Amino acid sequence: MTVVNFSDIPAMIHKVTPESPIGIFDSGIGGLTVVKAVQAALPSERIIYFGDTARVPYGPKSQVTIRKYAFDDIAILMRYQPKMIIVACNTVSALALDVVEKACGSIPVIGVLKAGAELAVKATINNRIGVIGTQATICSNAYACAINMLNPEIQVVSQACPLFVPLAEEGLIEHPATQLIATEYLAEIRTKGIDTLVLGCTHYPILRRVIEETIGQGIRIIDSAEAVALRTKQLMTESELLNPSLKTCPPHLLVSDLPQKFSMLYQLFMGSELPDVELVDVG
Amino acid sequence: MTVVNFSDIPAMIHKVTPESPIGIFDSGIGGLTVVKAVQAALPSERIIYFGDTARVPYGPKSQVTIRKYAFDDIAILMRYQPKMIIVACNTVSALALDVVEKACGSIPVIGVLKAGAELAVKATINNRIGVIGTQATICSNAYACAINMLNPEIQVVSQACPLFVPLAEEGLIEHPATQLIATEYLAEIRTKGIDTLVLGCTHYPILRRVIEETIGQGIRIIDSAEAVALRTKQLMTESELLNPSLKTCPPHLLVSDLPQKFSMLYQLFMGSELPDVELVDVG
Repeated sequence: MTVVNFSDIPAMIHKVTPESPIGIFDSGIGGLTVVKAVQAALPSERIIYFGDTARVPYGPKSQVTIRKYAFDDIAILMRYQPKMIIVACNTVSALALDVVEKACGSIPVIGVLKAGAELAVKATINNRIGVIGTQATICSNAYACAINMLNPEIQVVSQACPLFVPLAEEGLIEHPATQLIATEYLAEIRTKGIDTLVLGCTHYPILRRVIEETIGQGIRIIDSAEAVALRTKQLMTESELLNPSLKTCPPHLLVSDLPQKFSMLYQLFMGSELPDVELVDVG
Repeated sequence: MTVVNFSDIPAMIHKVTPESPIGIFDSGIGGLTVVKAVQAALPSERIIYFGDTARVPYGPKSQVTIRKYAFDDIAILMRYQPKMIIVACNTVSALALDVVEKACGSIPVIGVLKAGAELAVKATINNRIGVIGTQATICSNAYACAINMLNPEIQVVSQACPLFVPLAEEGLIEHPATQLIATEYLAEIRTKGIDTLVLGCTHYPILRRVIEETIGQGIRIIDSAEAVALRTKQLMTESELLNPSLKTCPPHLLVSDLPQKFSMLYQLFMGSELPDVELVDVG
């Protein structure tokens, strides 16, 4: 394993205009939930999306590997000279945001994790927040840190739900097996008196109904895709970088592999037909 | 995506002796079921195992990507000058065996797929064989081809069971959710009157009991790990390459990533404590 010394890497710098695209990346196609939310909030923006479908999933892998992959991902998006970068992958947001920020230089970076944490802190009344995510995200404790940076009084309870990603990708949205597994994963968190639950993985909105039913009534669900779209709109407005165009266009999709089920999965995540997709090499 | 022209690649050639190791590789750690079976059949052999844990799983990915990864994997094992290569990955056996054979030159290659197919053909009485595997393995139709090459009279029914890998890796060995999913996956194949079922993925032996209970009594289960171990013993005996040593030693393990759960998974697959593991870079 080559350990890259990220501090030696010069930031990639380019000129940005309101017409520049917004770059979004994820370990696979789960980040399409973020693309959908950003399109809904900012329909005039051009979006370049990269999904590392050749090396998905990142969730069960080590921090060293996740940081290396994050650097490769950002290098691909930077070729398109984006005006900002959205890290749609919670695992990268948790374990490699500094790598992305360093490579992006003055280009602003928004990670789903911080955006989700901010919205959860605003939403909670009783100061008890639940977070569910992949093994790597939960083990990193990054959500608890981000939440407690904003309010150290808040109690955070976390639970890794590793099977939610494959269940969502297989389309077992309301399957009894998914209900059984959700009941088991959420059993402990249900007893902790939380009033807010963060979906700390971009795949989880696909299973939102099962999660809502299992966790019980009266708990506010925070979808980090929606949270990041809100934060993006705010940032683009403040920086006067909103695209003035009145046209809308489909996202420009880049992937490192074209799996057999790509078209089915695209429809599952986006609810629309697959546009053209470009294959890129991550080595 | 760089498409490698594998016909231009010179075969890697080296001298082999009975003391040379047996090289085994898989997309991840599922191939450890093959290591265990080979160790049981040939306890004196030195085994070098490479698991591409940084890029696992291969099953849902495209053929182009699987072939590229297979070439990287074999290049790593060839550094150890093995006397033979076992492709423990059914997906690689189905979609990239020619790439491996070309790179190995005169070094013999055994793929789990052909070994499993041979054993199934010997086992069936009514000439109806079922095969279960990953999406890529089943879509390739490679098991049906290998079986029908041996006996064109045999009817093969196949079923992709994509959730079996994550369920096994999460240790949900006899969980009600696994039973539910197995019931659904195997519902159609159960009605086809098969007398033999091939476990066409190295993870599936972990779920053998649930699969056996679900498919029903009187159906012979073919574990491709055991099949490949038998074939290996036969080949080493015929080529007079059996290691004469009386000592046994643990396998030399190489992985491209050290995931958080590696130690737990090793124990699940091997039933013994984790030996030293070496990290290698696949780029």
